Amino acid sequence: MNVDVDLSPLRDYLEAEELDGYLIDDDASDSDQRYVSGFTAPDPYQTLVTQAGVHLLVSGLEYGRASTDASADSVTRRAAYDYQRLVAEHGQYEGKIRMLAAFLEDHGVGSVAVPRNFPTGTADGLREHGLAVTVEREGIVTDIRAVKTEWEVDQIRASQRANEAAMATAEELIATADVEDGILVRDGEPLTSEDVTEEIEITLLRHGCALDETIVACGADGADPHDRGSGPLEPDELIVVDIFPRDKETGYFADMTRTFARGDPGDEARRRYDVTRKAYEAALETVAAGVTGAEVHDVACDVIEDAGYATLRSDPDTETGFIHSTGHGVGLDIHEEPSVSPAGGELEPGHVISIEPGIYDPAVGGVRIEDLVVVTGDGYENLTDYRIGLEPTAGDRQ
Amino acid sequence: MNVDVDLSPLRDYLEAEELDGYLIDDDASDSDQRYVSGFTAPDPYQTLVTQAGVHLLVSGLEYGRASTDASADSVTRRAAYDYQRLVAEHGQYEGKIRMLAAFLEDHGVGSVAVPRNFPTGTADGLREHGLAVTVEREGIVTDIRAVKTEWEVDQIRASQRANEAAMATAEELIATADVEDGILVRDGEPLTSEDVTEEIEITLLRHGCALDETIVACGADGADPHDRGSGPLEPDELIVVDIFPRDKETGYFADMTRTFARGDPGDEARRRYDVTRKAYEAALETVAAGVTGAEVHDVACDVIEDAGYATLRSDPDTETGFIHSTGHGVGLDIHEEPSVSPAGGELEPGHVISIEPGIYDPAVGGVRIEDLVVVTGDGYENLTDYRIGLEPTAGDRQ
Repeated sequence: MNVDVDLSPLRDYLEAEELDGYLIDDDASDSDQRYVSGFTAPDPYQTLVTQAGVHLLVSGLEYGRASTDASADSVTRRAAYDYQRLVAEHGQYEGKIRMLAAFLEDHGVGSVAVPRNFPTGTADGLREHGLAVTVEREGIVTDIRAVKTEWEVDQIRASQRANEAAMATAEELIATADVEDGILVRDGEPLTSEDVTEEIEITLLRHGCALDETIVACGADGADPHDRGSGPLEPDELIVVDIFPRDKETGYFADMTRTFARGDPGDEARRRYDVTRKAYEAALETVAAGVTGAEVHDVACDVIEDAGYATLRSDPDTETGFIHSTGHGVGLDIHEEPSVSPAGGELEPGHVISIEPGIYDPAVGGVRIEDLVVVTGDGYENLTDYRIGLEPTAGDRQ
Repeated sequence: MNVDVDLSPLRDYLEAEELDGYLIDDDASDSDQRYVSGFTAPDPYQTLVTQAGVHLLVSGLEYGRASTDASADSVTRRAAYDYQRLVAEHGQYEGKIRMLAAFLEDHGVGSVAVPRNFPTGTADGLREHGLAVTVEREGIVTDIRAVKTEWEVDQIRASQRANEAAMATAEELIATADVEDGILVRDGEPLTSEDVTEEIEITLLRHGCALDETIVACGADGADPHDRGSGPLEPDELIVVDIFPRDKETGYFADMTRTFARGDPGDEARRRYDVTRKAYEAALETVAAGVTGAEVHDVACDVIEDAGYATLRSDPDTETGFIHSTGHGVGLDIHEEPSVSPAGGELEPGHVISIEPGIYDPAVGGVRIEDLVVVTGDGYENLTDYRIGLEPTAGDRQ
């Protein structure tokens, strides 16, 4: 369990704004609530942070698990406020509002801050019952959880181990495929992006991870960083493999990208691979507490621009070259704070970020190389242990 | 594509309330937005319904796909409102609000209804810009999408085909396991809930489906309808297998439960199986347009109570017997309208519902039998094609 959560910046905010509490009304898909409560449930539940503690309101079905699993100071079941009777008397909407108003009153809370995505239905309902509801606009909880505890870094590291196994599966499929009639072939059938994606997912499942999407993008597909790839893979083309699995138990993501080519992708593709690798190495060397994400991004842009390719810094309208940011935070969300982009602020020890420069052009294909690192006082620790190389190999990959 | 979506109940509501539009601000996880827009994206986007049409506001990255895929009358990219400049000048929060205010103004909208889960940050921001924001409390869109179009029924049927393949995988593992030292054994290793779950997931993946959770619960685990099950499976015990996959492409769920036992679970377990099956058959026979979900639920309760077991109807505090509702709607959400419970209203043609009575007791284990059906004018069509039987068999399962 993530025991070292420090909510003091949130409590400082509440004190400064003279608000009694911070209320979240959401379900497991909200990472802020999962982080603050140390709990996850398929159905909506409520988390209240006061100066005195963290308080959960859950259904009877979830009460037992919440009492043992959650990192909360108190857990209350809805039945404590006669929820079913309130719904029968006042309907589902008003019944829920009355239950919440009673829960807040129980904790001496007359005014709450809420996250930007707090349900308007709940906010307006509470206001009708005389509670003051203020939107906390800066995302304080999101900033708090950008700095990982040791326990969290261990969870992300475990997800990256699963990711390495999945990447090895993909690399081996590409390395061992036959080449026939201009496509990669396995067991006499075309080897497609979809085939490799399926084997990646199965490998991740066997390591306790799931994922919504994977990128296995060949040739021109790989030149669009948002294209998931489809159809037969081809020799002599760049193949971008980007995997971002989530541990089904802990909820922590990992992220890694490698680019491979069977056969000869050509001199220009090789050059782009080398430049991307240099940008990746230069960006990594820059990472340290106190450096800004913007500075790290600038270093990657310097390398790529010096090699003669466009970046969004040199040309905001370019559709080729380095057309995304250098990295992003990774944790309970796949994209979270901090940003390694022109808007990126100061890096802190415990920030977990991806470093993933790339160069894209439909005429050549895409190159992207991505590792996941945790920021330390004087640099970083790489959470990724996977060989970098354009030519795919089977086995012995480290 | 789901072309037959009928938003007229929403437009009637807007007209009656004298509101200019209905606004959703969410991402792919919101099924209402996915349904109304015919579009899904990992990042938030906005959908506006007016009397004139359905209008989308998306990022530049999503614009191309939205233009071709979405069932909207217009698609606008954020850049049309100088979003990046607004964020640079006013910050992320206020920048987004100003963009949305401009988008609404463009469509002549000065007042909007929003869903209950609409972000309070967005609602309060728009109000500060003089827009009227009213929460639509009844869930009109959720009611609209409870009635499935033919296209939707086809998608759910396809997910249930994948589900049948996964159930066959599970049944075969249980049927073909060896029995050694009081547990089921495969290849010399204990066959666990986790093993069966993994093979279910892999089968689903190969059929284009994913799932967050599966239930493979043996003995006392199966007596808690929310227990996912863990550890070695045992002979002479009831094993509940409940699978609810989602098609990764279409987003439509399926749902099915079977209960198996290797060896002899005992007379009482067999009796409970037979009673559950009778309750399932009686409930199914009751399903028809014009009948209420409450009536269907009552019929299941009648059978179970007549056999001498408790239900929540006969004893609201019981922790054994039939301790959940008879069914729920299934579609883009795994639990949606209509409800087949004491609160269940009138069934309509096109409602897709589960019928899943069960009987539970930690001393005996759990039994649940569940099919998925679509309501028709004079009855139902069963979307499930899977044998019902306590003894697991390998192959030839239909």
